[in-house]
Amino acid sequence: MKFEKIPSIAVTRLAVYARKLEHLDQKGEEVVSSVRLADICRINPAQVRKDLAYFGQFGIRGLGYYVKGLLLEISKILGLDREWHFGLVGVGNLGWALLKHAQSVKKGYSFVAAFDKRPNRIGLKVGDIRVEPLESMKCMVKEKGVEIGVIAVKPEWAQDAADRLVSAGVRGILNFAPVELNSPASVSIENVDFSLKLGVLCYRLTTAKSKRHHITSKLGA
Amino acid sequence: MKFEKIPSIAVTRLAVYARKLEHLDQKGEEVVSSVRLADICRINPAQVRKDLAYFGQFGIRGLGYYVKGLLLEISKILGLDREWHFGLVGVGNLGWALLKHAQSVKKGYSFVAAFDKRPNRIGLKVGDIRVEPLESMKCMVKEKGVEIGVIAVKPEWAQDAADRLVSAGVRGILNFAPVELNSPASVSIENVDFSLKLGVLCYRLTTAKSKRHHITSKLGA
Repeated sequence: MKFEKIPSIAVTRLAVYARKLEHLDQKGEEVVSSVRLADICRINPAQVRKDLAYFGQFGIRGLGYYVKGLLLEISKILGLDREWHFGLVGVGNLGWALLKHAQSVKKGYSFVAAFDKRPNRIGLKVGDIRVEPLESMKCMVKEKGVEIGVIAVKPEWAQDAADRLVSAGVRGILNFAPVELNSPASVSIENVDFSLKLGVLCYRLTTAKSKRHHITSKLGA
Repeated sequence: MKFEKIPSIAVTRLAVYARKLEHLDQKGEEVVSSVRLADICRINPAQVRKDLAYFGQFGIRGLGYYVKGLLLEISKILGLDREWHFGLVGVGNLGWALLKHAQSVKKGYSFVAAFDKRPNRIGLKVGDIRVEPLESMKCMVKEKGVEIGVIAVKPEWAQDAADRLVSAGVRGILNFAPVELNSPASVSIENVDFSLKLGVLCYRLTTAKSKRHHITSKLGA
């Protein structure tokens, strides 16, 4: 396993493969060819083969890859084989939805703390988690072992939320606020931005309407 | 403008450029070099130059691109220069969050209809929108001109929601349910999957901890 040689631009694709492999596994499929996986993931087959070359030992000449074996190895690389502790900042509609979603999926990650600046949110409970004021963040992050902060506050409060998380020792942030966040280089930030997906959808609909979709579909999405 | 020559794999990157250009525009920056834009977007500079070659006329030799001009052209291609009509299926926590978010950003897309199968949701109002039963979908999609369906239901109801949208004439779907949806080839589906982003974050934290992050950061994210 050549862990250390995987460029991080390929990691996003690994996450896509993991999702699709899981789906195949659930359907009881044991082996998948790189061409089929490429087709399912809508990624160039040559790219898929290059990415999967890191997992050479799971290939079966002329057949493809063992679904379960490949999934397990990718999960290890993505750190999905262990539980990660999340802390939520901002318990509005989206925050509630995320907390409830995490409780329903139980898939390697769980929220262990939640914070809000609004007095009427403090003390609310979702399962075992009690919403705490921002001032308790430093202490709670240590006590509960929060590793990843999830920001679901209004755009104007997002940078403050990020600063507080970083200062409390959190090194990974998933940001749902539609703004760019500044952080030290040692902190990893991933943005979840629905509007990017909307742009892609609107483009496809526009080109489909003008009967230009045959050009785009040739190249995959 | 060579609209028809843009492969759809590049469209996702255009959406990223649009977001970053908007940010630069808000900061009052008038010109951006391809190297700087690549750096901000964490995309290979050669790739950025190749993508932006579609917009040749906005380049200024030796300087870069006019931020406003480039943003406008990309927005046109992504269909963000006009308003798109959305219909929401599933008015739970996430659904409410999306409706409220759309009302607050007012950026080319607006929800014009919302549906739920639960009797206690029917009749609720968010702004001008009244939550309707699924049975009204066909009629409402036509009446309100819904172009894109947003699925925010539980995983087990997502396929039914997609089937109803497609049968009502919707050709674009943004799916927030963590499941694979089947649809005719004429329908475009984009999945918003937080777990992919989490996989990337967990990988970065794992490698950072084991002091291997210098290998990945060289190649960008």
